[in-house]
Formats: sequence, C-alpha cells, structure tokens
Amino acid sequence: MDELKSIIRDIPDFPKKGIIFKDITTLLADAKSYQRMIDLISHRYVGQHIDKVVGVEARGFIIGSALAYKLGAGVVLVRKPGKLPSETFSKTYDLEYGTDTLEIHTDAIKPGEKILIADDLLATGGTTAAVVDMVQKMGGEIVECCFMVELEFLDGKKRLPEGKVFSLLQF
Amino acid sequence: MDELKSIIRDIPDFPKKGIIFKDITTLLADAKSYQRMIDLISHRYVGQHIDKVVGVEARGFIIGSALAYKLGAGVVLVRKPGKLPSETFSKTYDLEYGTDTLEIHTDAIKPGEKILIADDLLATGGTTAAVVDMVQKMGGEIVECCFMVELEFLDGKKRLPEGKVFSLLQF
Repeated sequence: MDELKSIIRDIPDFPKKGIIFKDITTLLADAKSYQRMIDLISHRYVGQHIDKVVGVEARGFIIGSALAYKLGAGVVLVRKPGKLPSETFSKTYDLEYGTDTLEIHTDAIKPGEKILIADDLLATGGTTAAVVDMVQKMGGEIVECCFMVELEFLDGKKRLPEGKVFSLLQF
Repeated sequence: MDELKSIIRDIPDFPKKGIIFKDITTLLADAKSYQRMIDLISHRYVGQHIDKVVGVEARGFIIGSALAYKLGAGVVLVRKPGKLPSETFSKTYDLEYGTDTLEIHTDAIKPGEKILIADDLLATGGTTAAVVDMVQKMGGEIVECCFMVELEFLDGKKRLPEGKVFSLLQF
C-alpha cells in the first residue's frame, strides 16, 4: 500500500489555506497503480453479488464505474441538484459551513438490491452518510461504503454504518 | 445495438423546453447493458496501446474510467475551473449562449502518449473540440474520441479530427 500512497500528491492550501489536499489524480493517471487500486478494492466484493455501485459526483464516478464494471454490477449516480433528468429523491445535509444537497433517481434502486457505495475520499463522512440515508430509504441493502483514501483524523467512520466502511489507503 | 438504444430513456423538455434529453442513467444502472457497452467500445482499442483515457467532467468520468480499467490505461480528468488542485492548462470555448472553460493538469499528459478521449454524449462537439485542442497542445497523440451516444443531427463530428470519432449508439 505504501507504493500506492506515495503516488498520491500533497497539495498545500487547497481548496483553502491550511488544508493539505490529497491529490489522487497522480494515482489515477498511472496505469499500473490505477489497475491495482481497482483490483484491490473490488477483490473484497467478488462473490458478494453486488447489484449496483452508487457513485457520488464527481470523483466517486471514477472509482464507482470501474468497480461496477469489474464486479458485473450496474452504476447508480448521486448528483448535485438539477443534474438528474428524471424524478428524484433529494437529501440536504450539513457541511462545516452551510448545507449541501444531493439527488438520486427514484427508480435507481429497488428494494432488496445489494448496494456498494463508492467515493474517492472519506473525510468527515457527511456526504456518504447522506447517501447511506437515501439508499436505505429506497430499500437498498448496503453491503459496504468503500473509499480510495481515508483521512483517519477526521473520524468519518463514526457517521457511517458500523462495520460497513472500507478504505484502501489511510492518512 | 437496438437493445442498448431502447434502454436509454427520453426525457422531454430537459434541461430546457423543446429539448428531448437522452437519459443514459437507465443504461448505466442495468448491469448487463453497462458491461456490454464498455466491452463494445473498449474492443476497438485492444492492442492499440492506449496510454491514457481522458474523461470529461462529469459523465465522461463514468465511461472514461471503466474504459481505462479495461484497457490497462491511466485516467486523466478534464474538469470545470477550480476543481483540479495542481497547475493547470485551461481552455475557454464558445457555447450556444456564452462560454465555458475546462482545465487539465499540466503534467497529466506527456508528449507522444497515446490518448483516448471519452465522453457520454457527442452533441455539437464544442466541449470535445476544446479537449482535443488541450491534448494536442500537450503533445498527446489522439487515437480517437469515443462516445456512448451521438446526436447525429447536430453534426458534432465536423468539429473533431477527421476519421477519429466513434460513437456506439446514434440518434
């Protein structure tokens, strides 16, 4: 894992002063590391009959769609307001300052489907907790929430279903 | 192909009155159709030694990352302004009303690399033409621009490199 971690680039003061941003684009652009990352994460779910992988706009689409392809699952998009064209459920949740809203198509998940939620980064967990709530209200059975990277000092895990969080790389 | 086409849903008057939006989310959510779509597109490029697949925010990430995984290539992100954390090249281009700007990391593509540009939809071709321009300025060799869906009546092909455009499904 140290090899994969070393390819992730630190960007100081992005998006604002004092934050060290973990830039995953260097890992994505490296073909071997990208393959290895998807293989390592998807390996956990082989044989678990995942029906759909839910990807969260926008970087979650990258990991979510590759995982879905590898696992033989469908892809479901969670998007910012106004982007999904058909009927949606929406969920507004608190951020550090202000709120944010996410949407999902009302017919995207059927009751009893086995769902993997995928995103690039687990930080405070607020976004993923909102997605978990939407998926559960639609009757989806959450197998796990998986992440490329976890910022452990933010303890985002505690806002997500116990025992159902996996991150490949921890900082 | 008619089977795949039939799964794409028409949404009238989205994003504005008079436009019939081709909603690909129904195809993405259908595991078999999604696999088949990625297999059919990637099949064209097997053995062509694609180094990197460029995905255009946000739906282009979905198709681009799955194709990259299948082809053993890296993923490069083209994003809206302010989203990429490191040094970028940017390109502003004309839309029907107004302009739009896209960014790419300056170190994302090296001269001579073989590049596949991927997006969900070829409409007027303006966005992809801007991406082509950025990739070429960085010295990337464009193998092809590929799309899930092409709206043929908008003739977007004519704005892209001749003979280097592929779409899986045409409307």
